[in-house]
Amino acid sequence: MDYGFSEIDAYVKRCISLNEDEWEIWHNVLERGMVKRKEHLLREGEICRYEYYVIKGCLRSYYLDEKGNEVNIMFPVEDWWVGDLISFTDQVPSQLNIEAMEDSELWMISREHKEMLFERVPAFERMFRLMIQRSLAGVQQRLYATIAQPAELRYQHFIEKYPSIPLRIPQHHIASYLGITPEFLSKIRRKGRKG
Amino acid sequence: MDYGFSEIDAYVKRCISLNEDEWEIWHNVLERGMVKRKEHLLREGEICRYEYYVIKGCLRSYYLDEKGNEVNIMFPVEDWWVGDLISFTDQVPSQLNIEAMEDSELWMISREHKEMLFERVPAFERMFRLMIQRSLAGVQQRLYATIAQPAELRYQHFIEKYPSIPLRIPQHHIASYLGITPEFLSKIRRKGRKG
Repeated sequence: MDYGFSEIDAYVKRCISLNEDEWEIWHNVLERGMVKRKEHLLREGEICRYEYYVIKGCLRSYYLDEKGNEVNIMFPVEDWWVGDLISFTDQVPSQLNIEAMEDSELWMISREHKEMLFERVPAFERMFRLMIQRSLAGVQQRLYATIAQPAELRYQHFIEKYPSIPLRIPQHHIASYLGITPEFLSKIRRKGRKG
Repeated sequence: MDYGFSEIDAYVKRCISLNEDEWEIWHNVLERGMVKRKEHLLREGEICRYEYYVIKGCLRSYYLDEKGNEVNIMFPVEDWWVGDLISFTDQVPSQLNIEAMEDSELWMISREHKEMLFERVPAFERMFRLMIQRSLAGVQQRLYATIAQPAELRYQHFIEKYPSIPLRIPQHHIASYLGITPEFLSKIRRKGRKG
């Protein structure tokens, strides 16, 4: 019987090897979650109690800027992990908001379960190191783009990195990710099609 | 005889426990480095060949923005690690620049040595997971501050986080870290002293 472990287990297998007992421990720490479109998994000020793995669906994470505007940070889709690491690790209020853009199916792991997992199956240290490494690369790239890249280049990299996102996410959210107005995004897209 | 391992070994001990053989492997993967004030460890476009642990000294990492201005990202001091993770991991050109602000003593670990270390002493997966986790928290915070916090608050958090930095780093570099002009930084500092 398929309990929906196939995607997340494939993720694990790309990083580490486990024996049968270890697979069982792994499956036991996971909790299944569902979130409806427009529902929030996390809001600024709340404690992030879970890290989420996206089985199916699309989310967005965003900050609120000084004026209360939403600034999109990432669009986690299938096979991504999402959460507010600082809030999750230190159990302090989150700065991040996470909202579902589509009805989404998730695996969730709590802090207690994650600590237990590391204790009982140290190989997961490697998997989560690689996972965090990928996140760090993403946030580092996001910071670099925010500081150093012109909007056209940011859009080009965005399309290369997330080819499916423009079909799944409204334009104004992509504009917010890129730090530009929706009008300017349309202009870049028109130029891109001509070029 | 002290080969200068005491600080970095204390760092290791805060994360993991090792036996005598494992300590030897650890010491063998480390290379000693020195860098003079104003020398660069890494420039944009180069491949980042090492991760650096600061024994003594102070560095700064920065990006060049669209107009070629330097935007400071971090001021690694004693007991910090620094490097360009994406460049180091994937051996692609770095986006980051790293310059010494003081004559600095370093431990360096190459990618080959790090891989060998993980193979021979898997406990280091945990240490580097925790290290990356701290870096991710730092970059995430940096991105949030860049997007969402007013300059006064960014300055206040900066002082709390790096109490020794204002004595070690010229004002204009701190202003560049905060994304404001040196004049505006002076104004904030004067206001802070009155308040």
